[in-house]
Amino acid sequence: MSEGDRLTELAKRRGFFLQSSGSYGGVAGFYTYGPQGATLKENIESAWRDRFVTREGHMEIDGPTVMPEAVFEASGHLDGFDDMIIECPDCGESHRADHLVEDEPGSEVEDAEALPIAEVEDLFAEYEIDCPTCGAALAGEPIDDFNLMFGTNIGPGSSSPGYLRPETAQGIFVEFPQLAEYARNQLPFGVTQIGRAYRNEISPRNALVRVREFTQAELEHFIDPEEDEPPIERVEDVLLPLYSVEQQQAEDGQVQELTVREAVDEGVVADPWIAYYLGISKGWYERIGVDMDRFRYRQHLPGELAHYASDCWDAETEIDGDWIEVTGFAYRGDYDLAKHEKHSGEEYSVFKQYDEPVTVEKPTVDPDMSYLGPEFGGAAGAISEELQALAERDPDAFDGDTVEVTVDGERYEIPVERTGFAVEEVTESGEHVTPHTVEPSFGVDRLIYTVLAHAYEDDEVDGEQRTYLSLPPETAPTTVGVFPLMDKDGLAERAQEVARDLRAAGLEVTYDDSGAIGRRYRRQDEVGTPFCVTVDYDTLEEGTVTVRERDSTDQKRVAIEELEETLLALRDGRESFESL
Amino acid sequence: MSEGDRLTELAKRRGFFLQSSGSYGGVAGFYTYGPQGATLKENIESAWRDRFVTREGHMEIDGPTVMPEAVFEASGHLDGFDDMIIECPDCGESHRADHLVEDEPGSEVEDAEALPIAEVEDLFAEYEIDCPTCGAALAGEPIDDFNLMFGTNIGPGSSSPGYLRPETAQGIFVEFPQLAEYARNQLPFGVTQIGRAYRNEISPRNALVRVREFTQAELEHFIDPEEDEPPIERVEDVLLPLYSVEQQQAEDGQVQELTVREAVDEGVVADPWIAYYLGISKGWYERIGVDMDRFRYRQHLPGELAHYASDCWDAETEIDGDWIEVTGFAYRGDYDLAKHEKHSGEEYSVFKQYDEPVTVEKPTVDPDMSYLGPEFGGAAGAISEELQALAERDPDAFDGDTVEVTVDGERYEIPVERTGFAVEEVTESGEHVTPHTVEPSFGVDRLIYTVLAHAYEDDEVDGEQRTYLSLPPETAPTTVGVFPLMDKDGLAERAQEVARDLRAAGLEVTYDDSGAIGRRYRRQDEVGTPFCVTVDYDTLEEGTVTVRERDSTDQKRVAIEELEETLLALRDGRESFESL
Repeated sequence: MSEGDRLTELAKRRGFFLQSSGSYGGVAGFYTYGPQGATLKENIESAWRDRFVTREGHMEIDGPTVMPEAVFEASGHLDGFDDMIIECPDCGESHRADHLVEDEPGSEVEDAEALPIAEVEDLFAEYEIDCPTCGAALAGEPIDDFNLMFGTNIGPGSSSPGYLRPETAQGIFVEFPQLAEYARNQLPFGVTQIGRAYRNEISPRNALVRVREFTQAELEHFIDPEEDEPPIERVEDVLLPLYSVEQQQAEDGQVQELTVREAVDEGVVADPWIAYYLGISKGWYERIGVDMDRFRYRQHLPGELAHYASDCWDAETEIDGDWIEVTGFAYRGDYDLAKHEKHSGEEYSVFKQYDEPVTVEKPTVDPDMSYLGPEFGGAAGAISEELQALAERDPDAFDGDTVEVTVDGERYEIPVERTGFAVEEVTESGEHVTPHTVEPSFGVDRLIYTVLAHAYEDDEVDGEQRTYLSLPPETAPTTVGVFPLMDKDGLAERAQEVARDLRAAGLEVTYDDSGAIGRRYRRQDEVGTPFCVTVDYDTLEEGTVTVRERDSTDQKRVAIEELEETLLALRDGRESFESL
Repeated sequence: MSEGDRLTELAKRRGFFLQSSGSYGGVAGFYTYGPQGATLKENIESAWRDRFVTREGHMEIDGPTVMPEAVFEASGHLDGFDDMIIECPDCGESHRADHLVEDEPGSEVEDAEALPIAEVEDLFAEYEIDCPTCGAALAGEPIDDFNLMFGTNIGPGSSSPGYLRPETAQGIFVEFPQLAEYARNQLPFGVTQIGRAYRNEISPRNALVRVREFTQAELEHFIDPEEDEPPIERVEDVLLPLYSVEQQQAEDGQVQELTVREAVDEGVVADPWIAYYLGISKGWYERIGVDMDRFRYRQHLPGELAHYASDCWDAETEIDGDWIEVTGFAYRGDYDLAKHEKHSGEEYSVFKQYDEPVTVEKPTVDPDMSYLGPEFGGAAGAISEELQALAERDPDAFDGDTVEVTVDGERYEIPVERTGFAVEEVTESGEHVTPHTVEPSFGVDRLIYTVLAHAYEDDEVDGEQRTYLSLPPETAPTTVGVFPLMDKDGLAERAQEVARDLRAAGLEVTYDDSGAIGRRYRRQDEVGTPFCVTVDYDTLEEGTVTVRERDSTDQKRVAIEELEETLLALRDGRESFESL
């Protein structure tokens, strides 16, 4: 059984995730997080918030998932957020054309998405590709662009189309003018959003990896490209597993381990802001439970790069031999803000105050219309405008006695004294800067899937097969399972008291008194609970409990009065279980 | 200025909420929470989770917002989730017909939604109602049902319609079979979901009160209606401000204050589960900052009751003299589960084990086909089936020598000895029970709106007007503002250290060193920060700081080594500011 399959089975059985609306046959690409999964997701989101919002001092916002068409006209999604679709003439099933080409045995095409449609159509003929559903020949069938946004109508009628946002980022970009106010117009500042995004996949697949509704955690860091530098020194020694374009293109190219500082100095990561985020993210992946032996940063190949991005790296994790993108780190330049400024007519910039006001020379004209009018008739207005433009463009043209301008192909000569030409001294206190954007964009569902897949372990305990999830205590849905050895002689009451006290101390606690103690351990093992506490007869007599560690299954006796502090220290990594 | 207007102004200026996509003219009914609002929302959601999930021992799930049509066919939303719409023949604007009737001066209609369409059409003629946009006459225009779900298509083409869920509840109901497994098929159990829901309002209005995309926190408590009782004793002394049907219909009817126990005993609240939830919710509203002098529980009038609900109460809060529903408490019976069972063909019940197996008598037949066949020819099969049905329905019919059945209008007489009639004793270990559902459904956005409106205060400090939000520390986006008195002599460095230490202790901290100290206090007052700490020269010399309380503006000196513990105690209400 593949890693993915055995995980999907466990996930449904133990309440991590399951395909939604299963009673109605399910809908491909939609998943529901069960009680364990919802808590795991919350834990990962809150670890993200801690690292990328609080500790970085960024702002978080929370916007709607339905947005009006104008936003996606500006962002480019209405025109360009497409996949190639081919429909089977026999069974009517739709498929992603580029995926069929890549998956065809014998095909060596790796990135069909980057090819023009006509070329992909030719490849269907060349490889004689058939419909994977019914086997009919697809060669000769037309391939179309299919827009991946879910559309809807806002209000009655269809006059106000809306779309489910394809990324949370646009909800940040569109509100930039107001967000800059909250940042008191001081660059750099960062804005984050955690929330749903949607992609109407033609063929969803691979459980949580390619779904139609998902959760993103995005950070848009707005910087002054001429001035702002990231605090590289905070992460300079972090080792990055880098799989650069060069290494990908080399025969037997391998991942290179470079420190953040080396990566920047050697130009392997071109932009220091991207390097900074690769640096702080690496520790975070490790913290939430990604296996760093199955992790790499891969640079986008030239053909993969989005049109707006000058450099782009993906964090990738390995599951079943496949590498899955879990985060994209993109330098988006001023693409998004400039687009919204152009489309909305509002200002998407900040006013950058100079340290000291600057005096600049500003050539102006003030044409004598009582001369131009009679002299040039209807052309006078246009001539006047042209003189103004010329003064800004080439003030030296006014050096002689006359100046020449061309209006509608006609040349006019005007005495300079009639133009009112002058050079004024103007004091400017600053200038408008359109910030550049550095964007780390995390796919929460894929991270959950990775963390679960990487935590999945099998071993043998007392001659029996055991499955457990080696989740870090911060990520695990439950931190402590509390059991009475038996449901009699006051053991249950004492255990419930212990559970209550531990909850009050801020620990996530599950109480379980049902079935043999071994079965209760297995249940907690399967949902990744790192510690279990058993209340037994010694508890009543000596005031101690058994604390059992999940991965090693080792047990230690701990005094009840030290239990709370011990478990908190174990959870936060201040103490190791062996040292107890 | 109304409470709503001044709040909306503050909310945009200080980053609580603003209409989304304002650069493109905005879209009615969609709001974005700014940095303060997003944190406030998170705080309210986490207080809800603490009270209604953790402390009640319920499960939380997290499902998709897009769901397939089959779900809403079953739930009744496809057919019945409508508002009355009327379109102006002149300007083309659409309006909610029932609202226009209610808002018409001189109209005494209070609940036009409950009237049949034809009657509402008549009222337009009677009151001569005009289009509020352009003034054209609307009398005689047709009124239609407008379905309030946002529709979309899942995958390519339109063969798989989907809808944005109109409530989070259906995402729980539809997964009931699996959720019951997680609860080990033991009733009662509760399942919660916090997430987005959508309602394509014809005319959104009133800021966060009537929006098209909103956040719900819903709890579905599944109970065995014959056995399960709520733990009323936990809340029996809680005083409920009840505005019952009787009081609403009485002249000068007032809110009655009854304890939970009295409300149940006197039958004012018919269902004890509803009373239980009214009881635990009341303390929660108070905890997050609802002004309990502007709060009541109002019973649904008979005409308002949803078809599935036998009793329903709303928690309502007052703003600008209007009462706003912030939570609905409904006893939904087995309506939802029975509907899904019927539509999906899956089992939406739990198997209830009897304490001891029960032996029941089960009449059966085993007709002698070698007799029926030759005797009745083609009718033999149908006769056999009819005999089986008769045995179950009326075993006494087999008491005589012959028994009579009717098939397709024809009567047949069969010797009882040929029917193989017998009464078997069958042992049954339990039965299938379709649980009933008790549902408290909270509108998170309306609660945010209420909490902000009720917290809004004006006063005068040192001769200057001041606006502050008297938010409880648990709800406020920031718990502590930390300021250096001035940005020199090491004060800023010391203040940053203090801020870092307080953050590490788990407090929400804002650091601010810009502008006069008075202005910094005002900034924190306006976002509801309950405590501010100022680092001054005495801090460097004596190791003390000034702690200032928001509402009273009182200040106290506190030793730095006691600061963390003092602030935590103030936040958690373990200590009062006056007692410092």
